[in-house]
Amino acid sequence: MKLTVVGLGPGAGEDLTGRARRAIEEADLVVGYTAYIALIRDQFPDKEMRSTGMKKEVDRCRMAVEAAAGGKNVAVVCSGDSGVYGMAGLIYEVSREFPPIDIEVVPGITAACGGAAVLGAPLTHDFAVISLSDLLTPWEKIEKRLAAAAEADFVICLYNPRSHSRSDYLRRACDILLTHGKSPDTVCGFVQNIGREGERAVTCSLKALRDNEDVDMFTTVFIGNSQTELIGGRMVTPRGYLQREENGK
Amino acid sequence: MKLTVVGLGPGAGEDLTGRARRAIEEADLVVGYTAYIALIRDQFPDKEMRSTGMKKEVDRCRMAVEAAAGGKNVAVVCSGDSGVYGMAGLIYEVSREFPPIDIEVVPGITAACGGAAVLGAPLTHDFAVISLSDLLTPWEKIEKRLAAAAEADFVICLYNPRSHSRSDYLRRACDILLTHGKSPDTVCGFVQNIGREGERAVTCSLKALRDNEDVDMFTTVFIGNSQTELIGGRMVTPRGYLQREENGK
Repeated sequence: MKLTVVGLGPGAGEDLTGRARRAIEEADLVVGYTAYIALIRDQFPDKEMRSTGMKKEVDRCRMAVEAAAGGKNVAVVCSGDSGVYGMAGLIYEVSREFPPIDIEVVPGITAACGGAAVLGAPLTHDFAVISLSDLLTPWEKIEKRLAAAAEADFVICLYNPRSHSRSDYLRRACDILLTHGKSPDTVCGFVQNIGREGERAVTCSLKALRDNEDVDMFTTVFIGNSQTELIGGRMVTPRGYLQREENGK
Repeated sequence: MKLTVVGLGPGAGEDLTGRARRAIEEADLVVGYTAYIALIRDQFPDKEMRSTGMKKEVDRCRMAVEAAAGGKNVAVVCSGDSGVYGMAGLIYEVSREFPPIDIEVVPGITAACGGAAVLGAPLTHDFAVISLSDLLTPWEKIEKRLAAAAEADFVICLYNPRSHSRSDYLRRACDILLTHGKSPDTVCGFVQNIGREGERAVTCSLKALRDNEDVDMFTTVFIGNSQTELIGGRMVTPRGYLQREENGK
Protein backbone atom coordinates (compact mmCIF):
# COMPACT_ATOMS: atom_id res chain seq x y z
CA MET A 1 0.00 0.00 0.00
CA LYS A 2 3.02 2.20 0.43
CA LEU A 3 6.06 2.88 -1.71
CA THR A 4 9.10 4.80 -0.51
CA VAL A 5 11.77 5.98 -2.94
CA VAL A 6 14.94 6.06 -0.88
CA GLY A 7 18.19 7.88 -1.62
CA LEU A 8 21.12 5.92 -0.17
CA GLY A 9 23.69 8.72 -0.39
CA PRO A 10 27.00 8.24 -2.20
CA GLY A 11 28.00 4.90 -0.67
CA ALA A 12 25.01 3.84 1.43
CA GLY A 13 27.31 3.93 4.44
CA GLU A 14 27.73 6.68 7.00
CA ASP A 15 26.05 9.21 4.72
CA LEU A 16 22.76 7.30 4.94
CA THR A 17 20.14 9.35 6.80
CA GLY A 18 18.08 8.10 9.72
CA ARG A 19 14.92 8.34 7.63
CA ALA A 20 16.41 6.29 4.78
CA ARG A 21 17.53 3.59 7.20
CA ARG A 22 14.10 3.40 8.79
CA ALA A 23 12.36 3.22 5.40
CA ILE A 24 14.45 0.18 4.44
CA GLU A 25 13.94 -1.44 7.84
CA GLU A 26 10.15 -1.02 7.62
CA ALA A 27 9.84 -2.27 4.04
CA ASP A 28 8.52 -5.74 3.21
CA LEU A 29 10.41 -5.64 -0.07
CA VAL A 30 13.40 -3.61 -1.29
CA VAL A 31 13.82 -3.06 -5.04
CA GLY A 32 16.82 -1.58 -6.83
CA TYR A 33 19.51 -1.68 -9.46
CA THR A 34 21.85 -4.63 -8.84
CA ALA A 35 24.85 -2.50 -7.84
CA TYR A 36 22.82 -0.51 -5.28
CA ILE A 37 21.25 -3.59 -3.73
CA ALA A 38 24.80 -4.92 -3.32
CA LEU A 39 25.69 -1.79 -1.31
CA ILE A 40 23.05 -2.47 1.34
CA ARG A 41 22.72 -6.27 1.24
CA ASP A 42 25.00 -6.83 4.25
CA GLN A 43 23.38 -4.10 6.35
CA PHE A 44 19.91 -5.61 6.05
CA PRO A 45 20.59 -9.36 5.79
CA ASP A 46 17.04 -10.60 6.42
CA LYS A 47 15.29 -8.25 4.06
CA GLU A 48 13.61 -9.48 0.87
CA MET A 49 15.34 -7.70 -2.01
CA ARG A 50 14.87 -7.78 -5.77
CA SER A 51 17.33 -6.30 -8.22
CA THR A 52 17.30 -5.65 -11.94
CA GLY A 53 20.12 -4.61 -14.26
CA MET A 54 20.92 -1.43 -16.13
CA LYS A 55 18.39 -0.03 -18.58
CA LYS A 56 15.65 -1.98 -16.79
CA GLU A 57 14.43 1.14 -14.98
CA VAL A 58 10.84 1.02 -16.23
CA ASP A 59 10.45 -2.69 -15.45
CA ARG A 60 11.92 -2.20 -11.99
CA CYS A 61 9.58 0.67 -11.16
CA ARG A 62 6.53 -1.20 -12.47
CA MET A 63 7.46 -4.22 -10.35
CA ALA A 64 7.77 -2.00 -7.29
CA VAL A 65 4.51 -0.11 -7.84
CA GLU A 66 2.67 -3.34 -8.58
CA ALA A 67 3.90 -4.88 -5.32
CA ALA A 68 2.85 -1.77 -3.39
CA ALA A 69 -0.57 -1.76 -5.10
CA GLY A 70 -0.85 -5.42 -4.04
CA GLY A 71 -0.51 -4.47 -0.38
CA LYS A 72 3.22 -4.52 0.32
CA ASN A 73 5.35 -1.83 1.90
CA VAL A 74 8.00 -1.36 -0.78
CA ALA A 75 11.26 0.61 -0.74
CA VAL A 76 12.89 1.48 -4.07
CA VAL A 77 16.53 2.36 -3.43
CA CYS A 78 18.69 4.71 -5.51
CA SER A 79 22.31 5.76 -5.18
CA GLY A 80 22.78 9.36 -4.02
CA ASP A 81 19.48 11.26 -3.93
CA SER A 82 16.30 9.52 -5.07
CA GLY A 83 15.18 12.66 -6.88
CA VAL A 84 18.33 13.82 -8.72
CA TYR A 85 18.40 11.65 -11.87
CA GLY A 86 16.93 9.00 -9.56
CA MET A 87 13.84 6.82 -9.71
CA ALA A 88 11.42 9.18 -7.92
CA GLY A 89 10.12 10.76 -11.13
CA LEU A 90 9.66 7.47 -12.95
CA ILE A 91 7.84 5.96 -9.95
CA TYR A 92 5.28 8.78 -10.11
CA GLU A 93 4.95 8.37 -13.88
CA VAL A 94 4.51 4.61 -13.70
CA SER A 95 2.10 4.83 -10.76
CA ARG A 96 -0.55 6.21 -13.11
CA GLU A 97 -0.91 2.71 -14.62
CA PHE A 98 -1.92 1.18 -11.25
CA PRO A 99 -4.48 1.71 -8.51
CA PRO A 100 -3.53 4.65 -6.24
CA ILE A 101 -0.73 4.02 -3.71
CA ASP A 102 0.90 6.19 -1.10
CA ILE A 103 4.32 7.41 -2.36
CA GLU A 104 6.99 9.03 -0.19
CA VAL A 105 10.33 10.32 -1.47
CA VAL A 106 13.20 10.10 1.03
CA PRO A 107 16.08 12.34 -0.07
CA GLY A 108 19.73 11.32 0.11
CA ILE A 109 23.11 13.00 -0.32
CA THR A 110 23.46 13.46 -4.07
CA ALA A 111 26.88 13.12 -5.76
CA ALA A 112 27.05 16.91 -6.24
CA CYS A 113 27.01 17.43 -2.47
CA GLY A 114 28.96 14.29 -1.58
CA GLY A 115 31.68 14.96 -4.15
CA ALA A 116 31.88 18.65 -3.26
CA ALA A 117 32.57 17.72 0.36
CA VAL A 118 35.50 15.53 -0.72
CA LEU A 119 36.98 18.27 -2.91
CA GLY A 120 36.47 21.11 -0.40
CA ALA A 121 33.66 23.59 -1.03
CA PRO A 122 33.12 24.12 -4.76
CA LEU A 123 29.31 24.59 -4.54
CA THR A 124 29.21 27.53 -2.15
CA HIS A 125 27.71 29.71 -4.89
CA ASP A 126 25.07 29.28 -7.63
CA PHE A 127 25.56 26.05 -9.56
CA ALA A 128 24.15 23.99 -12.40
CA VAL A 129 23.89 20.20 -12.46
CA ILE A 130 24.07 18.63 -15.92
CA SER A 131 24.17 14.98 -17.00
CA LEU A 132 26.32 14.29 -20.07
CA SER A 133 24.40 11.11 -20.85
CA ASP A 134 22.51 11.44 -24.11
CA LEU A 135 20.69 8.12 -23.75
CA LEU A 136 17.52 10.02 -22.81
CA THR A 137 18.36 13.62 -23.70
CA PRO A 138 19.31 14.96 -27.14
CA TRP A 139 22.97 16.05 -27.19
CA GLU A 140 21.94 19.44 -28.61
CA LYS A 141 19.98 20.14 -25.41
CA ILE A 142 22.98 19.17 -23.28
CA GLU A 143 25.20 21.46 -25.37
CA LYS A 144 22.81 24.34 -24.94
CA ARG A 145 22.77 23.89 -21.17
CA LEU A 146 26.56 23.70 -20.98
CA ALA A 147 26.89 26.89 -23.01
CA ALA A 148 24.30 28.76 -20.91
CA ALA A 149 25.87 27.66 -17.63
CA ALA A 150 29.32 28.76 -18.80
CA GLU A 151 28.12 32.13 -20.06
CA ALA A 152 26.40 32.93 -16.76
CA ASP A 153 29.46 31.87 -14.72
CA PHE A 154 27.74 29.06 -12.81
CA VAL A 155 29.78 26.48 -10.97
CA ILE A 156 28.96 23.33 -12.97
CA CYS A 157 28.63 19.79 -11.72
CA LEU A 158 28.62 17.03 -14.35
CA TYR A 159 26.99 13.64 -13.80
CA ASN A 160 27.70 10.69 -16.13
CA PRO A 161 30.70 12.46 -17.66
CA ARG A 162 31.89 9.49 -19.69
CA SER A 163 31.05 5.89 -20.60
CA HIS A 164 32.45 3.30 -22.98
CA SER A 165 30.22 4.43 -25.79
CA ARG A 166 30.72 8.13 -24.95
CA SER A 167 34.47 8.29 -24.47
CA ASP A 168 34.87 11.82 -25.85
CA TYR A 169 31.87 13.51 -24.19
CA LEU A 170 33.82 15.17 -21.39
CA ARG A 171 36.25 16.62 -23.91
CA ARG A 172 33.37 17.90 -26.03
CA ALA A 173 31.73 19.41 -22.96
CA CYS A 174 34.96 21.16 -21.92
CA ASP A 175 35.34 22.58 -25.42
CA ILE A 176 31.84 24.03 -25.22
CA LEU A 177 32.58 25.57 -21.82
CA LEU A 178 35.84 27.05 -23.14
CA THR A 179 34.08 28.49 -26.17
CA HIS A 180 31.40 30.06 -23.98
CA GLY A 181 33.47 32.03 -21.53
CA LYS A 182 35.10 29.65 -19.05
CA SER A 183 38.82 30.36 -18.77
CA PRO A 184 41.23 27.46 -19.48
CA ASP A 185 42.63 28.14 -15.99
CA THR A 186 39.27 27.65 -14.26
CA VAL A 187 39.75 25.54 -11.13
CA CYS A 188 38.16 22.12 -11.63
CA GLY A 189 38.03 18.84 -9.77
CA PHE A 190 36.60 15.38 -9.98
CA VAL A 191 35.85 12.60 -7.54
CA GLN A 192 35.68 8.90 -8.32
CA ASN A 193 33.77 6.35 -6.24
CA ILE A 194 32.42 8.92 -3.77
CA GLY A 195 31.93 7.35 -0.35
CA ARG A 196 33.01 3.93 -1.63
CA GLU A 197 36.14 1.86 -1.83
CA GLY A 198 38.62 3.54 -4.14
CA GLU A 199 37.42 7.09 -3.47
CA ARG A 200 39.83 9.45 -5.20
CA ALA A 201 39.75 13.23 -5.67
CA VAL A 202 41.75 15.22 -8.21
CA THR A 203 41.92 18.97 -8.81
CA CYS A 204 43.16 20.47 -12.08
CA SER A 205 42.56 23.30 -14.56
CA LEU A 206 39.75 23.18 -17.12
CA LYS A 207 42.43 22.87 -19.80
CA ALA A 208 43.83 19.77 -18.06
CA LEU A 209 40.37 18.34 -17.38
CA ARG A 210 39.67 18.45 -21.12
CA ASP A 211 42.56 16.08 -21.80
CA ASN A 212 42.16 13.91 -18.72
CA GLU A 213 41.66 10.21 -19.39
CA ASP A 214 40.96 9.10 -15.81
CA VAL A 215 37.37 10.28 -15.62
CA ASP A 216 34.98 7.34 -15.92
CA MET A 217 31.30 6.60 -15.38
CA PHE A 218 31.79 6.46 -11.60
CA THR A 219 33.15 10.01 -11.52
CA THR A 220 31.46 13.32 -10.72
CA VAL A 221 33.10 16.40 -12.24
CA PHE A 222 33.14 19.97 -10.91
CA ILE A 223 34.00 23.08 -12.92
CA GLY A 224 34.47 26.21 -10.83
CA ASN A 225 33.15 29.69 -11.49
CA SER A 226 35.48 32.64 -12.15
CA GLN A 227 36.06 33.08 -8.38
CA THR A 228 36.81 29.45 -7.50
CA GLU A 229 40.31 28.97 -6.11
CA LEU A 230 42.57 26.35 -4.57
CA ILE A 231 43.17 26.74 -0.84
CA GLY A 232 45.64 24.22 0.54
CA GLY A 233 44.82 21.89 -2.33
CA ARG A 234 41.04 22.15 -1.80
CA MET A 235 38.60 23.51 -4.39
CA VAL A 236 36.79 26.47 -2.84
CA THR A 237 34.21 28.86 -4.30
CA PRO A 238 33.93 31.96 -2.12
CA ARG A 239 30.44 33.03 -1.16
CA GLY A 240 31.58 36.61 -0.62
CA TYR A 241 31.51 37.02 3.17
CA LEU A 242 35.22 37.72 3.50
CA GLN A 243 35.26 39.94 0.43
CA ARG A 244 32.42 42.01 1.94
CA GLU A 245 34.41 42.39 5.15
CA GLU A 246 37.50 43.45 3.19
CA ASN A 247 35.43 46.07 1.43
CA GLY A 248 34.43 47.42 4.83
CA LYS A 249 30.70 46.84 4.40
CA MET B 1 43.30 20.22 15.86
CA LYS B 2 40.31 19.20 13.79
CA LEU B 3 37.37 21.09 12.37
CA THR B 4 34.34 19.44 10.82
CA VAL B 5 31.80 21.45 8.84
CA VAL B 6 28.55 19.55 9.29
CA GLY B 7 25.39 19.77 7.20
CA LEU B 8 22.36 19.09 9.40
CA GLY B 9 19.88 18.49 6.60
CA PRO B 10 16.62 20.45 6.37
CA GLY B 11 15.48 20.09 9.96
CA ALA B 12 18.36 18.31 11.74
CA GLY B 13 15.94 15.51 12.49
CA GLU B 14 15.51 12.22 10.68
CA ASP B 15 17.34 13.55 7.63
CA LEU B 16 20.58 13.85 9.63
CA THR B 17 23.18 11.36 8.35
CA GLY B 18 25.08 8.93 10.53
CA ARG B 19 28.33 10.75 9.77
CA ALA B 20 26.90 14.14 10.78
CA ARG B 21 25.60 12.72 14.05
CA ARG B 22 28.96 11.17 14.84
CA ALA B 23 30.83 14.40 14.03
CA ILE B 24 28.71 16.31 16.54
CA GLU B 25 29.03 13.57 19.16
CA GLU B 26 32.82 13.55 18.84
CA ALA B 27 33.24 17.34 18.91
CA ASP B 28 34.50 19.19 22.00
CA LEU B 29 32.74 22.32 20.80
CA VAL B 30 29.84 22.91 18.40
CA VAL B 31 29.58 26.32 16.71
CA GLY B 32 26.67 27.63 14.64
CA TYR B 33 24.08 30.23 13.81
CA THR B 34 21.65 30.62 16.72
CA ALA B 35 18.68 29.08 14.90
CA TYR B 36 20.66 25.97 13.86
CA ILE B 37 22.10 25.43 17.33
CA ALA B 38 18.50 25.53 18.58
CA LEU B 39 17.62 22.69 16.19
CA ILE B 40 20.14 20.30 17.77
CA ARG B 41 20.37 21.58 21.36
CA ASP B 42 17.98 18.95 22.74
CA GLN B 43 19.59 16.06 20.86
CA PHE B 44 23.05 16.73 22.34
CA PRO B 45 22.24 18.15 25.79
CA ASP B 46 25.73 17.85 27.29
CA LYS B 47 27.64 19.32 24.38
CA GLU B 48 29.40 22.70 24.63
CA MET B 49 27.80 24.92 21.98
CA ARG B 50 28.43 28.51 20.92
CA SER B 51 26.09 30.43 18.66
CA THR B 52 26.27 33.77 16.89
CA GLY B 53 23.56 35.72 15.09
CA MET B 54 22.89 36.51 11.46
CA LYS B 55 25.57 38.34 9.46
CA LYS B 56 28.19 37.17 11.96
CA GLU B 57 29.44 34.45 9.61
CA VAL B 58 33.07 35.58 9.47
CA ASP B 59 33.34 36.00 13.26
CA ARG B 60 31.76 32.59 13.79
CA CYS B 61 34.13 30.85 11.41
CA ARG B 62 37.17 32.60 12.90
CA MET B 63 36.09 31.54 16.39
CA ALA B 64 35.74 27.96 15.22
CA VAL B 65 39.06 27.81 13.37
CA GLU B 66 40.83 29.48 16.29
CA ALA B 67 39.45 26.90 18.71
CA ALA B 68 40.51 24.08 16.38
CA ALA B 69 43.98 25.60 15.97
CA GLY B 70 44.13 25.73 19.78
CA GLY B 71 43.68 21.97 20.00
CA LYS B 72 39.93 21.39 20.13
CA ASN B 73 37.82 19.10 18.00
CA VAL B 74 35.27 21.58 16.62
CA ALA B 75 32.07 21.01 14.64
CA VAL B 76 30.59 23.94 12.71
CA VAL B 77 26.94 23.17 11.95
CA CYS B 78 24.95 24.47 8.98
CA SER B 79 21.36 23.92 7.97
CA GLY B 80 20.95 21.73 4.89
CA ASP B 81 24.28 20.95 3.24
CA SER B 82 27.45 22.50 4.64
CA GLY B 83 28.72 23.22 1.14
CA VAL B 84 25.67 24.68 -0.64
CA TYR B 85 25.64 28.33 0.45
CA GLY B 86 26.96 26.94 3.75
CA MET B 87 30.01 27.67 5.86
CA ALA B 88 32.43 25.17 4.26
CA GLY B 89 33.88 27.69 1.82
CA LEU B 90 34.31 30.43 4.41
CA ILE B 91 35.99 28.01 6.82
CA TYR B 92 38.61 27.23 4.20
CA GLU B 93 39.08 30.94 3.43
CA VAL B 94 39.40 31.93 7.09
CA SER B 95 41.71 29.00 7.86
CA ARG B 96 44.48 30.75 5.92
CA GLU B 97 44.77 33.25 8.80
CA PHE B 98 45.61 30.51 11.33
CA PRO B 99 48.10 27.66 11.76
CA PRO B 100 47.15 24.64 9.64
CA ILE B 101 44.26 22.48 10.90
CA ASP B 102 42.58 19.36 9.59
CA ILE B 103 39.25 20.27 7.93
CA GLU B 104 36.54 17.78 6.97
CA VAL B 105 33.30 18.67 5.22
CA VAL B 106 30.33 16.44 6.10
CA PRO B 107 27.56 16.87 3.54
CA GLY B 108 23.88 17.12 4.42
CA ILE B 109 20.57 17.08 2.57
CA THR B 110 20.36 20.51 0.96
CA ALA B 111 17.01 22.31 0.61
CA ALA B 112 16.95 21.58 -3.13
CA CYS B 113 16.86 17.83 -2.46
CA GLY B 114 14.80 18.04 0.74
CA GLY B 115 12.20 20.34 -0.80
CA ALA B 116 12.08 18.35 -4.03
CA ALA B 117 11.22 15.22 -2.06
CA VAL B 118 8.28 16.99 -0.42
CA LEU B 119 6.94 18.27 -3.75
CA GLY B 120 7.43 14.99 -5.64
CA ALA B 121 10.33 14.74 -8.10
CA PRO B 122 11.02 18.11 -9.74
CA LEU B 123 14.83 17.65 -10.00
CA THR B 124 14.92 14.46 -12.04
CA HIS B 125 16.57 16.33 -14.89
CA ASP B 126 19.30 19.00 -15.24
CA PHE B 127 18.79 21.86 -12.80
CA ALA B 128 20.26 25.16 -11.67
CA VAL B 129 20.40 26.39 -8.07
CA ILE B 130 20.33 30.18 -7.66
CA SER B 131 20.15 32.33 -4.54
CA LEU B 132 18.11 35.52 -4.90
CA SER B 133 19.96 37.21 -2.06
CA ASP B 134 21.98 40.16 -3.32
CA LEU B 135 23.70 40.79 0.01
CA LEU B 136 26.88 39.23 -1.36
CA THR B 137 26.18 38.96 -5.11
CA PRO B 138 25.39 41.84 -7.48
CA TRP B 139 21.77 41.66 -8.67
CA GLU B 140 22.95 41.92 -12.31
CA LYS B 141 24.79 38.62 -11.91
CA ILE B 142 21.70 36.95 -10.42
CA GLU B 143 19.61 38.30 -13.32
CA LYS B 144 22.07 36.93 -15.84
CA ARG B 145 21.96 33.48 -14.25
CA LEU B 146 18.16 33.46 -14.14
CA ALA B 147 18.00 34.40 -17.82
CA ALA B 148 20.56 31.77 -18.85
CA ALA B 149 18.84 29.03 -16.83
CA ALA B 150 15.46 29.89 -18.36
CA GLU B 151 16.79 30.00 -21.92
CA ALA B 152 18.43 26.57 -21.58
CA ASP B 153 15.26 25.04 -20.07
CA PHE B 154 16.82 24.06 -16.74
CA VAL B 155 14.64 23.18 -13.79
CA ILE B 156 15.46 26.04 -11.40
CA CYS B 157 15.64 25.94 -7.62
CA LEU B 158 15.66 29.30 -5.82
CA TYR B 159 17.19 29.78 -2.37
CA ASN B 160 16.50 32.94 -0.32
CA PRO B 161 13.60 33.92 -2.58
CA ARG B 162 12.40 36.80 -0.42
CA SER B 163 13.19 38.77 2.73
CA HIS B 164 11.77 41.87 4.40
CA SER B 165 14.16 44.12 2.53
CA ARG B 166 13.73 42.19 -0.74
CA SER B 167 9.97 41.78 -0.87
CA ASP B 168 9.70 42.01 -4.67
CA TYR B 169 12.68 39.83 -5.65
CA LEU B 170 10.70 36.70 -6.43
CA ARG B 171 8.39 38.71 -8.69
CA ARG B 172 11.38 40.26 -10.44
CA ALA B 173 12.95 36.83 -10.86
CA CYS B 174 9.74 35.36 -12.31
CA ASP B 175 9.53 38.27 -14.77
CA ILE B 176 13.06 37.53 -15.98
CA LEU B 177 12.22 33.83 -16.40
CA LEU B 178 9.06 34.72 -18.32
CA THR B 179 10.99 37.11 -20.57
CA HIS B 180 13.62 34.47 -21.29
CA GLY B 181 11.50 31.58 -22.46
CA LYS B 182 9.72 30.01 -19.49
CA SER B 183 6.01 29.61 -20.22
CA PRO B 184 3.55 31.26 -17.77
CA ASP B 185 2.05 27.77 -17.39
CA THR B 186 5.33 26.18 -16.26
CA VAL B 187 4.66 23.90 -13.31
CA CYS B 188 6.17 25.40 -10.14
CA GLY B 189 6.15 24.63 -6.46
CA PHE B 190 7.48 25.87 -3.19
CA VAL B 191 8.07 24.39 0.24
CA GLN B 192 8.18 26.29 3.52
CA ASN B 193 9.97 25.05 6.65
CA ILE B 194 11.29 21.87 5.02
CA GLY B 195 11.59 19.11 7.61
CA ARG B 196 10.46 21.41 10.41
CA GLU B 197 7.28 22.32 12.20
CA GLY B 198 4.97 24.09 9.79
CA GLU B 199 6.23 22.30 6.67
CA ARG B 200 3.96 23.27 3.81
CA ALA B 201 4.15 22.53 0.09
CA VAL B 202 2.29 24.37 -2.67
CA THR B 203 2.23 23.80 -6.43
CA CYS B 204 1.18 26.47 -8.91
CA SER B 205 1.93 27.91 -12.34
CA LEU B 206 4.82 30.32 -12.91
CA LYS B 207 2.24 33.02 -13.56
CA ALA B 208 0.69 32.38 -10.13
CA LEU B 209 4.08 32.09 -8.44
CA ARG B 210 4.93 35.57 -9.68
CA ASP B 211 2.01 37.04 -7.74
CA ASN B 212 2.24 34.78 -4.70
CA GLU B 213 2.65 36.57 -1.38
CA ASP B 214 3.19 33.49 0.82
CA VAL B 215 6.81 32.85 -0.13
CA ASP B 216 9.11 33.98 2.67
CA MET B 217 12.75 33.60 3.68
CA PHE B 218 12.12 30.07 4.98
CA THR B 219 10.88 28.93 1.57
CA THR B 220 12.62 27.08 -1.28
CA VAL B 221 11.11 27.62 -4.72
CA PHE B 222 11.10 25.23 -7.70
CA ILE B 223 10.40 26.20 -11.32
CA GLY B 224 9.94 23.26 -13.66
CA ASN B 225 11.39 22.75 -17.12
CA SER B 226 9.18 22.53 -20.21
CA GLN B 227 8.45 18.84 -19.47
CA THR B 228 7.57 19.15 -15.78
CA GLU B 229 4.03 18.06 -15.02
CA LEU B 230 1.64 17.49 -12.14
CA ILE B 231 0.91 13.83 -11.37
CA GLY B 232 -1.69 13.39 -8.65
CA GLY B 233 -0.80 16.81 -7.30
CA ARG B 234 2.95 16.12 -7.24
CA MET B 235 5.51 18.10 -9.26
CA VAL B 236 7.34 15.65 -11.52
CA THR B 237 10.04 16.22 -14.14
CA PRO B 238 10.32 13.17 -16.40
CA ARG B 239 13.80 11.81 -16.99
CA GLY B 240 12.72 10.25 -20.26
CA TYR B 241 12.66 6.51 -19.49
CA LEU B 242 8.96 6.07 -20.17
CA GLN B 243 9.08 8.31 -23.23
CA ARG B 244 11.91 6.15 -24.63
CA GLU B 245 9.79 3.04 -24.09
CA GLU B 246 6.81 4.67 -25.79
CA ASN B 247 8.98 5.49 -28.78
CA GLY B 248 9.88 1.81 -28.97
CA LYS B 249 13.61 2.32 -28.49
